[in-house]
Amino acid sequence: MATLQLASWATNLTYANLTTSVVDAAVKSMYNWAGCAIAGYAQDAPQIAFNTTSAFFGGPPTSSILGSNGSIGNTFADAQRAALINGIASHIDDYDDTHLESIIHPSGPVASALLAVSEWRGPVSGQDFLTAFVAGVETECKLGLSVYPEHYDVGWHTTSTTGSIGAAVAVGKILGLDTTQMQHAIGVAATQVVGMQAFFGSMTKSFHIGRAAQGGMLGALLASNGYTSSLEALEVEYGWLHVVSTRENATAYFDQLGEIWEIEKNTFKPFPCGIVMHPTIDGATQLHNQSVEQGKDLGSIKAIELVVNSEVLVLTGKESPVTGLEGKFSIYHAAAVGILFGEATPAQFTDEAVNNKTVVDMRKKVSVKTDDDKYSTAQALVTIEFEDGSTLEKEIEHAIGSLENPLNETELKKKFLDQVSKQFGDVRAEKAYDAFANIGNMSDVGTLRMLY
Amino acid sequence: MATLQLASWATNLTYANLTTSVVDAAVKSMYNWAGCAIAGYAQDAPQIAFNTTSAFFGGPPTSSILGSNGSIGNTFADAQRAALINGIASHIDDYDDTHLESIIHPSGPVASALLAVSEWRGPVSGQDFLTAFVAGVETECKLGLSVYPEHYDVGWHTTSTTGSIGAAVAVGKILGLDTTQMQHAIGVAATQVVGMQAFFGSMTKSFHIGRAAQGGMLGALLASNGYTSSLEALEVEYGWLHVVSTRENATAYFDQLGEIWEIEKNTFKPFPCGIVMHPTIDGATQLHNQSVEQGKDLGSIKAIELVVNSEVLVLTGKESPVTGLEGKFSIYHAAAVGILFGEATPAQFTDEAVNNKTVVDMRKKVSVKTDDDKYSTAQALVTIEFEDGSTLEKEIEHAIGSLENPLNETELKKKFLDQVSKQFGDVRAEKAYDAFANIGNMSDVGTLRMLY
Repeated sequence: MATLQLASWATNLTYANLTTSVVDAAVKSMYNWAGCAIAGYAQDAPQIAFNTTSAFFGGPPTSSILGSNGSIGNTFADAQRAALINGIASHIDDYDDTHLESIIHPSGPVASALLAVSEWRGPVSGQDFLTAFVAGVETECKLGLSVYPEHYDVGWHTTSTTGSIGAAVAVGKILGLDTTQMQHAIGVAATQVVGMQAFFGSMTKSFHIGRAAQGGMLGALLASNGYTSSLEALEVEYGWLHVVSTRENATAYFDQLGEIWEIEKNTFKPFPCGIVMHPTIDGATQLHNQSVEQGKDLGSIKAIELVVNSEVLVLTGKESPVTGLEGKFSIYHAAAVGILFGEATPAQFTDEAVNNKTVVDMRKKVSVKTDDDKYSTAQALVTIEFEDGSTLEKEIEHAIGSLENPLNETELKKKFLDQVSKQFGDVRAEKAYDAFANIGNMSDVGTLRMLY
Repeated sequence: MATLQLASWATNLTYANLTTSVVDAAVKSMYNWAGCAIAGYAQDAPQIAFNTTSAFFGGPPTSSILGSNGSIGNTFADAQRAALINGIASHIDDYDDTHLESIIHPSGPVASALLAVSEWRGPVSGQDFLTAFVAGVETECKLGLSVYPEHYDVGWHTTSTTGSIGAAVAVGKILGLDTTQMQHAIGVAATQVVGMQAFFGSMTKSFHIGRAAQGGMLGALLASNGYTSSLEALEVEYGWLHVVSTRENATAYFDQLGEIWEIEKNTFKPFPCGIVMHPTIDGATQLHNQSVEQGKDLGSIKAIELVVNSEVLVLTGKESPVTGLEGKFSIYHAAAVGILFGEATPAQFTDEAVNNKTVVDMRKKVSVKTDDDKYSTAQALVTIEFEDGSTLEKEIEHAIGSLENPLNETELKKKFLDQVSKQFGDVRAEKAYDAFANIGNMSDVGTLRMLY
């Protein structure tokens, strides 16, 4: 019954069902995603994907490529190509958002598909858009929870494995699918399981998000035209839950649909890199500031010791990254730049930054111990030892950006403006912020692209 | 080293490495695939997919949609759309081919991607085409063997889960990728794991083949433009082999690349339905003929008893199919039509045939017992009991179409002509057969579409 339960809930969800807090979380998720996509478009991965798909995906250009620079603010493409490129761009900096309980970055697959389809098949009101967005995000996160942690531990990239299903549900709402069609859409999306952790630190990690957006959208479109899959795609033997996980408890989580809102637990990354490195970076940047305040010479650092959860080394154990993308999955690099620069922005994760001699030298001083009893992946202890024998240490219980210590609206706006102004300049960045932050009030989301 | 080993073998493979028997198997595989694709195009699933993707995938129409009926024999689309539609069409009748050791239908994903790209990026000679085709098929089957049976038993549709990687390798050869690029292509393809058995009996089963063709092609194209994945995508922890299977022995099978040719073991389906039903159908059709010879009244059949391997019921246990696609996965339907009509052609697996009262009544007389000690999935015992108490029985050790009892060239040609003449008429069907059967002699495979 799980597939029917999900499809039925999603098709019946209306804007009136959303609490103020849910809408607020959805809006923040949307503009945080847009900032990432606009800024990320300048990276190699979305550029290569854009050029590679120019030979096909050439239908009527109905949908925006965020971050591109056409005459009215965007280059347009057909909805499938836009979803692929926006998905890659929004994730390439590893700067987007995180549902921490399931380690899902929920906005990417859903928003990339949804915005592209809304522009194409609209008019879609802001309220309908946010309702569909929430339905997609709830789908992803409930599915993620129902297979966590076994599904993640075996090596799947849960953002995209659940993302195609979330995208299908969101797009399915915009297309007005009935419950049976929604079940078929869920099926076509579920059978496309994209994303493994082997590709963290390469461009393919971001491909996962774009491909999930495409696959889910394609599932909803096929179902709207009568393509059949299974009415029990999630729960049936040899279906999604059993094939991709040894554990599943979907019905229990689906029972909470509309009661516990996962989007309210969405968090926004303060640092553009793997989420499990954030506590270390938080500690390292604080120690940078302390060192400066105390007049300590950073050049006299003898050793940096981290104590973290063992999962941190599993995911981010690259000792000698050579590209910026690898640096995003190197706890050694994260600690080094945090202490050297007191910040970890996209500038600290470029190819140049990763190969900078001062950074490389500092990275070599980093050693990592693990203590799973004392530290969860959300926590860390950072200790600096100076050549004079003095030490500074910082223990992080709730890293900045976590649910307990979230970025506030001012910080989120600053993040968006920092990202987007690099592409568009300050004035247009402000306009883009206003456009995305007020998406809920629009009568036609398809006009978003005219506003900045 | 597995990824490097495969990439290196594939990039270095030349036509001169192929034995006569390998080339012969490749040519048969190609025209058997083409016959299926041309005939399958008339079905709902490829039609829906064609219409659904008309809004995008609209790049320059370089590649043939097999079975369509444009001015010079084909409608054209961009290579991605052609791969999707041809992949769906070639599998929708479940009439294609089978590598029995791994239960992979190898031609679909590889040929669908390869023909589309060859038409687009050619000229590609027939010899180069067949070399790339063989590289792709060997990739699929060696990977399938290395994770069999655990990967299949958990519910994956191995044709498509290995198919995207096979398609990437084949297309990568046409694009002239070097070994490192081929490794990246394998990575992008490997992270897209499409296809679960939950969708057998629905249109989504065929979507798997088209989507695998698209995904693998996209991986090779992205890699050719510098997109990065992992150089160890198959073997690394959290990579393909470990994520999708609890068992893997890729290196052992890769050591046999170019020594044991899996394509030589490819078999061609005499019946358009799940392969594990073939022994039963073989027995049932023989019993039909015996009954007619002996003047028995088929209307006086009291009971039909099957003894088969238990896997047959797992995969084809649908007692009351209501669509033709479901009939293809109903051992009850298979036995009934074999005994009633003495044949099992596409006409026996239409929606009408499945709901025909005489068929339904006969289906209700079928009972199934399992005996795994006595019968493999390639074997069956069929017994008819008549109302007068007399019985007829037939035990099948090697079903028609199996490696031990294969379709000969005359039968394969007849199968092709039966399929294709329904779409194109007899004259054009003969021309199409000549074109595909002589593909190895062409200087430019892109001119195939002009030959029929």
